[in-house]
Amino acid sequence: METDSRIEAALAQVVAKATAAPCPAHLAEAIRYAVFPGGGRVRPGLCLAVAKACGDREPAVANAAAIAVELLHCASLIQDDLPCFDDAPLRRGQLSLHKRFGEAAAILVGDALIVMAFSAVSAHVAKRPAECAEMLRALAEAAGAPAGIAAGQAWESEVSVDLAAYHHAKTAALFEAAAVAGAVAGGGEPRAWRQVGALLGSAYQVADDLADALGESGTLGKPIHQDGNKARPSVVTNLGIEGAIRRLDELLGQAMQSIPECQGRGSVEEFLRIAADRLCPPELRKGEDAENAENTENAKGTVNE
Amino acid sequence: METDSRIEAALAQVVAKATAAPCPAHLAEAIRYAVFPGGGRVRPGLCLAVAKACGDREPAVANAAAIAVELLHCASLIQDDLPCFDDAPLRRGQLSLHKRFGEAAAILVGDALIVMAFSAVSAHVAKRPAECAEMLRALAEAAGAPAGIAAGQAWESEVSVDLAAYHHAKTAALFEAAAVAGAVAGGGEPRAWRQVGALLGSAYQVADDLADALGESGTLGKPIHQDGNKARPSVVTNLGIEGAIRRLDELLGQAMQSIPECQGRGSVEEFLRIAADRLCPPELRKGEDAENAENTENAKGTVNE
Repeated sequence: METDSRIEAALAQVVAKATAAPCPAHLAEAIRYAVFPGGGRVRPGLCLAVAKACGDREPAVANAAAIAVELLHCASLIQDDLPCFDDAPLRRGQLSLHKRFGEAAAILVGDALIVMAFSAVSAHVAKRPAECAEMLRALAEAAGAPAGIAAGQAWESEVSVDLAAYHHAKTAALFEAAAVAGAVAGGGEPRAWRQVGALLGSAYQVADDLADALGESGTLGKPIHQDGNKARPSVVTNLGIEGAIRRLDELLGQAMQSIPECQGRGSVEEFLRIAADRLCPPELRKGEDAENAENTENAKGTVNE
Repeated sequence: METDSRIEAALAQVVAKATAAPCPAHLAEAIRYAVFPGGGRVRPGLCLAVAKACGDREPAVANAAAIAVELLHCASLIQDDLPCFDDAPLRRGQLSLHKRFGEAAAILVGDALIVMAFSAVSAHVAKRPAECAEMLRALAEAAGAPAGIAAGQAWESEVSVDLAAYHHAKTAALFEAAAVAGAVAGGGEPRAWRQVGALLGSAYQVADDLADALGESGTLGKPIHQDGNKARPSVVTNLGIEGAIRRLDELLGQAMQSIPECQGRGSVEEFLRIAADRLCPPELRKGEDAENAENTENAKGTVNE
């Protein structure tokens, strides 16, 4: 798929630059390990789908936005796995970065990826200042404090948790940034797209909580039951399995309905359909009882419309 | 001093923004602790001294550059102190951040500060695109891989160490960025100033190695003998105490000589003089023997010219 190859090629380029001489050899290997092979590349996929829907006016800028989002995501995964967070030995079916390269390298790779994210977009500032200003703002909001990934991870250690703020910061914020940056890079109006990103991001958070509660470690490629074990806030704890599945379907349906009218609307609809199938496959529903079937079917109908 | 108040006010502004609602309370407190009270604020001081020397055309942009450099520095100190790096219980005379707030918060504050650094400069992109593009590039080079702070810290875990690359990345790169960003923000030509920053940064690295070898923990506000204990590359190990002091004086003298001709040259000369006195106070020389006195005096004469 053309989108995938754009993402991988752009990532390869910035990784090559960051790992070139005089980069220390161990750090360079760890940076490559953190980025390749990737997971679903969902966030950069959303970014490029939105950019295309908006006309894809400046593909190189859209690529930069897409990989910036992915690099921030990769950094957050590394940190999530560290001993002082989830202490996870596995990620994407292989050793987590600190297990393979040590904690010091893991922390430094996180830093390097965050810097690479801002650097990728900054490279286009002189040519597209207004767009880059907006993209950089969106990335900073999604990554830092008070309401980005750093804040999202921090909520997990707070005595009292604002669940909505936690979920937004931990997951939805970066999806929002992906949609906003994609729209801006593509030549569109970002406001309408922000909501699409936020809803898909919220759906991912629910799916992640569900996967943690239900999944098999081998399938997910990471340890399960972390939320319960760590007494972490979780949608499943609040709504139960069935309630969480209903919520997931609702969010995906709302995301689909939020897509603004535009020429390339179809590319985002298709992207959301694929994402929905990945997030809520039929086997996830096997535990649902008959009385919930109707509601779920309605919601599912909305997603697949 | 006007420079100090500019730096503190600009830092206060970005810290207030990052710690505003909905920032988790513990994270917000840790961010404030990481930035206030500061140490010498040497890097932002250099940045503003150079900006003034170049005409200080756009003070708000120079302030943003100065605090970006300081935020990156604060992030690096937090990480340096972590158990998997120096495992230092003290910093600036008080508990290191992870000792006070826990490792998770320390890592997240590091992320947040890096994001705040890029965000501070990004805020001026629309108004000053060419300048911001150059400043953002300088910051990214100084902070990330292959040759910024992340790489510098990574060299400490490598099997084989490139000492010049290590010292440049760990310390000199951020001083270079401070000088370059100050020149760009002030309306000057950055090329000539890069060398001033690199030389002062190299001097700081030597002074840091010397302080580690000679200092008293109470005076430095952090543990000493870390280089020897960790078998870390150090100028003192390579040149001995006296050789390191000579090297420090040489570097400070060269930095002073590298200041390009400009109207506001005096502000940078004064800045360097104060920095030199802090870095190499008379008591540091008390261990020198007579045969080295002449060389040192010459070098010192250059510094204080």
